[in-house]
Amino acid sequence: MSYSISDIIGLIAPLQKKAAESAAEHLDRLTKPPGSLGKLEELAVQLAGITGQVKPSFPQRAIIVMAADHGVCEEGISAFPAEVTPQMVLNFLSGGAAINVFARQASAEVLCVDIGVNAELSHPDLLERKVRMGTANMALGPAMSRAEAEAAVLAGVAVVEEAVNKGTTLFVTGEMGIGNTTASAAIMSVLTGIAPAECVGRGTGIDERKLEHKASVVERAIAVNQPDANDPVDVLSKVGGLEIAGLTGVILGAAAHRCPVVIDGFISSIAALVAQRLCAETASYMVASHHSQEPGHIQVLRELGLSPMLELNMRLGEGTGGALALHLIDGACRIMKEMATFESAGISAGEPAVEEDAK
Amino acid sequence: MSYSISDIIGLIAPLQKKAAESAAEHLDRLTKPPGSLGKLEELAVQLAGITGQVKPSFPQRAIIVMAADHGVCEEGISAFPAEVTPQMVLNFLSGGAAINVFARQASAEVLCVDIGVNAELSHPDLLERKVRMGTANMALGPAMSRAEAEAAVLAGVAVVEEAVNKGTTLFVTGEMGIGNTTASAAIMSVLTGIAPAECVGRGTGIDERKLEHKASVVERAIAVNQPDANDPVDVLSKVGGLEIAGLTGVILGAAAHRCPVVIDGFISSIAALVAQRLCAETASYMVASHHSQEPGHIQVLRELGLSPMLELNMRLGEGTGGALALHLIDGACRIMKEMATFESAGISAGEPAVEEDAK
Repeated sequence: MSYSISDIIGLIAPLQKKAAESAAEHLDRLTKPPGSLGKLEELAVQLAGITGQVKPSFPQRAIIVMAADHGVCEEGISAFPAEVTPQMVLNFLSGGAAINVFARQASAEVLCVDIGVNAELSHPDLLERKVRMGTANMALGPAMSRAEAEAAVLAGVAVVEEAVNKGTTLFVTGEMGIGNTTASAAIMSVLTGIAPAECVGRGTGIDERKLEHKASVVERAIAVNQPDANDPVDVLSKVGGLEIAGLTGVILGAAAHRCPVVIDGFISSIAALVAQRLCAETASYMVASHHSQEPGHIQVLRELGLSPMLELNMRLGEGTGGALALHLIDGACRIMKEMATFESAGISAGEPAVEEDAK
Repeated sequence: MSYSISDIIGLIAPLQKKAAESAAEHLDRLTKPPGSLGKLEELAVQLAGITGQVKPSFPQRAIIVMAADHGVCEEGISAFPAEVTPQMVLNFLSGGAAINVFARQASAEVLCVDIGVNAELSHPDLLERKVRMGTANMALGPAMSRAEAEAAVLAGVAVVEEAVNKGTTLFVTGEMGIGNTTASAAIMSVLTGIAPAECVGRGTGIDERKLEHKASVVERAIAVNQPDANDPVDVLSKVGGLEIAGLTGVILGAAAHRCPVVIDGFISSIAALVAQRLCAETASYMVASHHSQEPGHIQVLRELGLSPMLELNMRLGEGTGGALALHLIDGACRIMKEMATFESAGISAGEPAVEEDAK
């Protein structure tokens, strides 16, 4: 790899205004009250701006599931043992996980990436991009070196690049890593200034006592490492995770290649926040999918200016919310291509839209 | 038709507990933290209870779009002229409306029913079930007679019955009728006791001044007609609409045939409220789809004990939110059929779920 992170950032351009405007005009000619398809209309305009096409479609889409382990599991912050990370990776590869089910439903490919699982894994479909065997325990010192964090980000960029070269034009972020809501909470606290106790959640299902413990571990990790909030890569390396860094790269890579990227749940939103702090324009390429039960998620989405479309009380990760949102993206694209106009259908127009509905 | 409304109600049975319990047990064996798929898990359990099958699927589904006109349009309560109702019916029949687009995407059939359009319509695909040529102006007297309201409800039941006989097992409610958010607001106000001003919304896009006028028209309609809140058919006939009555029949008919019925937006939710007031058990067969921008919608869903899955700021009706929710229903069904279990995938179990997650 010859890229640096700043090379990638240099490739991220603003959306294409003209295509977005044409899309908005087309929407107002369709047989529906202006703005009545709500977020799907905003999405159609955004997709036009991203792709430069008024009526894009995304037949080839990939869900990139980055998997890694977390040294902080030693502190007993998860309901599941760390060995579940490699076990779930094998489940992804054999097609039995929730993300495989939703991917098949949405005709999407699952790209499963070992970016830092603490086990030797080998499978013909596994993308082996291991940067290290899991992070170190961030409660005692940095999770990884700065060079490792950069390598993980660039590995994410490279996975996107390879997929783009094979024709993929739409990406969904997904992840697996026992302990990764703890690392995500730490990054969130550092980057937003919100107290650790408000950034942690129940993850895969811990109880009240363990939740308090989790917050205290996050506090300790921040105190021990003193990450620099103005240096996102420093934050990633000190209190982050390899899959989070990898997804930051996926998001930067998608934006650099003018591809929309669907942000899944809490952990994915943290990767998105890091990407946005590295390059604010990246947020224009993001599509929020669902509103996770993990309490920090909605706050991070707001920080990114994103509003989720699905309200399912999910908290599984893997990219599951993102995969379900693909149907909504497809719906927005079909509206642009298939709906009749007032003129073509011979339908009387209404009054001019009220102010609130003007796009 | 030999049925009466009470005959239909007599056929509506409670959900099948055993199948629902088996579905819940199966969900807890799948490779995910218990409850982590949120509402999709609740949906899977509900669908099992409705159908009696732990792993149901719904390959043949119909979106029933009931169209009718409203005499109250004379009062100037809509942003669009009444002639748009028949124009949009023709648009549905030629496949150019938003609901056609989403129906194709979800492999659903659109059954377009003229239950009271104020125009002579004829088309090979139109289900001609016209009860009368639109309602009378409810601001001056009853919208229709009690016999007409009953006929419209039973027409809805019959449309479901015919579809069930042809193999359909899942229904979505949809509607078209310029003026129908005004009738819906009147029904809502009578059945819930909430003031008209809090039941009205902007419909297809009226301004603030017209919104106040709309509330005053609803107030007048209620004052003139004095509908009996304890007699849902009386309410339907005095301040309702033919498509609303027809959808009440669709919902009762679906429940009587043990088919899930997806409730679309505000108008559909009002038909659902009438159905629930006629027979409380009907609500167990309902699946909420989206949260409409029409302000009364979420209140009515709460009244029904339903929680929407899609947060799209839509306000189009036609069944559009319901059609998009079909992908989520399909997702819930696929989870039951396709996901690996902890045992089959050889994955370590977590701690017992915390109280809040117990289903």
